[in-house]
Amino acid sequence: MSDENKTALYGLTAVPAQFPSPQSLTLKNSLTNGATTLRELTAQEVATMPDTPLARRIDKYARAKLPPQVYRHSRRVFAWGNAVVRGSVWGEQSVFEGEKGNIGDEKLSETWFVTAMLHDIGTPEETLKSTRLSYEFWAGFHAVQILQDASLTGDADQTDAVADREQAESVAEAVLRHQDVQDKGKVSLLTRLIHIGTLLDNIGRGKEFINHQTIDNVVKEWTRTETDGEGRVESVWTDCFRGTVELEKKHKPYAMVSRIEGFEDVIAKNGAKGGLFESQ
Amino acid sequence: MSDENKTALYGLTAVPAQFPSPQSLTLKNSLTNGATTLRELTAQEVATMPDTPLARRIDKYARAKLPPQVYRHSRRVFAWGNAVVRGSVWGEQSVFEGEKGNIGDEKLSETWFVTAMLHDIGTPEETLKSTRLSYEFWAGFHAVQILQDASLTGDADQTDAVADREQAESVAEAVLRHQDVQDKGKVSLLTRLIHIGTLLDNIGRGKEFINHQTIDNVVKEWTRTETDGEGRVESVWTDCFRGTVELEKKHKPYAMVSRIEGFEDVIAKNGAKGGLFESQ
Repeated sequence: MSDENKTALYGLTAVPAQFPSPQSLTLKNSLTNGATTLRELTAQEVATMPDTPLARRIDKYARAKLPPQVYRHSRRVFAWGNAVVRGSVWGEQSVFEGEKGNIGDEKLSETWFVTAMLHDIGTPEETLKSTRLSYEFWAGFHAVQILQDASLTGDADQTDAVADREQAESVAEAVLRHQDVQDKGKVSLLTRLIHIGTLLDNIGRGKEFINHQTIDNVVKEWTRTETDGEGRVESVWTDCFRGTVELEKKHKPYAMVSRIEGFEDVIAKNGAKGGLFESQ
Repeated sequence: MSDENKTALYGLTAVPAQFPSPQSLTLKNSLTNGATTLRELTAQEVATMPDTPLARRIDKYARAKLPPQVYRHSRRVFAWGNAVVRGSVWGEQSVFEGEKGNIGDEKLSETWFVTAMLHDIGTPEETLKSTRLSYEFWAGFHAVQILQDASLTGDADQTDAVADREQAESVAEAVLRHQDVQDKGKVSLLTRLIHIGTLLDNIGRGKEFINHQTIDNVVKEWTRTETDGEGRVESVWTDCFRGTVELEKKHKPYAMVSRIEGFEDVIAKNGAKGGLFESQ
């Protein structure tokens, strides 16, 4: 694959760091400050896992390592990113609509999928406490290693289920910066996607970019609540994530997440009355 | 070593992310928003390399891998940090004055030294072009590996010249964030030191924290210019670093350094007439 193709298919196209404004909602190219073709926000089906060996290996690993609430969050993040990016133009790059809610380019879709599945791989309590690195930095280090070496996930025989260096580095770059939402400079397309996906799921930001029916479809498939055998709610995503932020700041008061002042409050509001995900 | 001792001696004490203001210059505790003991800015000798096996191994490696201009920059960064931090109180931590311009706690001094020596290990042209990661992310990954494994620097026999996981992670946390200068939240003490050292050397920021004689001493020992056999200036640090920023943005327009808008201009001003390091 040429260097240019790697840039496009691994999600390394540079886009403005500034989070897209709500006013740009109806413009197909608006997210890139480009042309002004109208964009229709249609209801979309829930994106399925890309059918590739690498995606399957990382999905299995994430399912084993992440608590179910974090796994489902990661699947929703993947779905939100797809819903926003499909059929849009980003920087110099057109992102085509593929089947089953996915992006048209399978390699880009795969790269985005493993980014979403690994972005919170550093947050399980035992992992978080086992490192002095901010949890997303630990995750970035871990991602770049396991993506290139299937033996690290216990799948040494899956020789076709590995990323090359550039693909792994693109994933790591996005994972490392996934809580670094800034107005200045540029970020990679994958970094933009992980911002859109995580901010929507955690604090309700950017809901203007997604059709409400799409939101309902995704949350129905990858629920934000966990119930016991009799349907009683045992946990909600909002509380889970707020707890993770508190735990990180308690063990590493210097960590990256400390920069998002009042984060716990806006997370709570997202799941409170009037929030995008009330009681979830 | 206890967890608490590791926090202190590996430079993981949390301090406010906001860069100290010039007004706080004369206050011993000012950098931490703490008490207001007067601090005298005395002339200091140039900090020498801590005399430990790990410091010696990493110094040898940095000297081999970095162009002389970048190596000397790293030594100046180490010296600036020491000049600011010695005899100050940071967060809950007093940093004692040691011998030969160093910090009193040898382990903290060693950790700070290897951080300074490795922070730009991703910037040599060949390395910069060999990765899709922002150069400081590559450097953080590389640091965490080589610090714990002496065989990676060709020194497998030096079994006492290795960091434990926590020390290596503290170095990596600071290297990863060394261009992430923000007002919100907290950073580790080592991150604060690498900000102070690099910003002073590259754009002249924070010169109010260091006695002018100290600046002269450091620049005399670790010069910012390179001359040929007949004393003609062949290169100045200002141009070297500006060139590195341009190269990174050309190859990775999404990279972290793109966030510092107008960086090339303030770098140039630092070495221009009226800058802190005129013609250097």
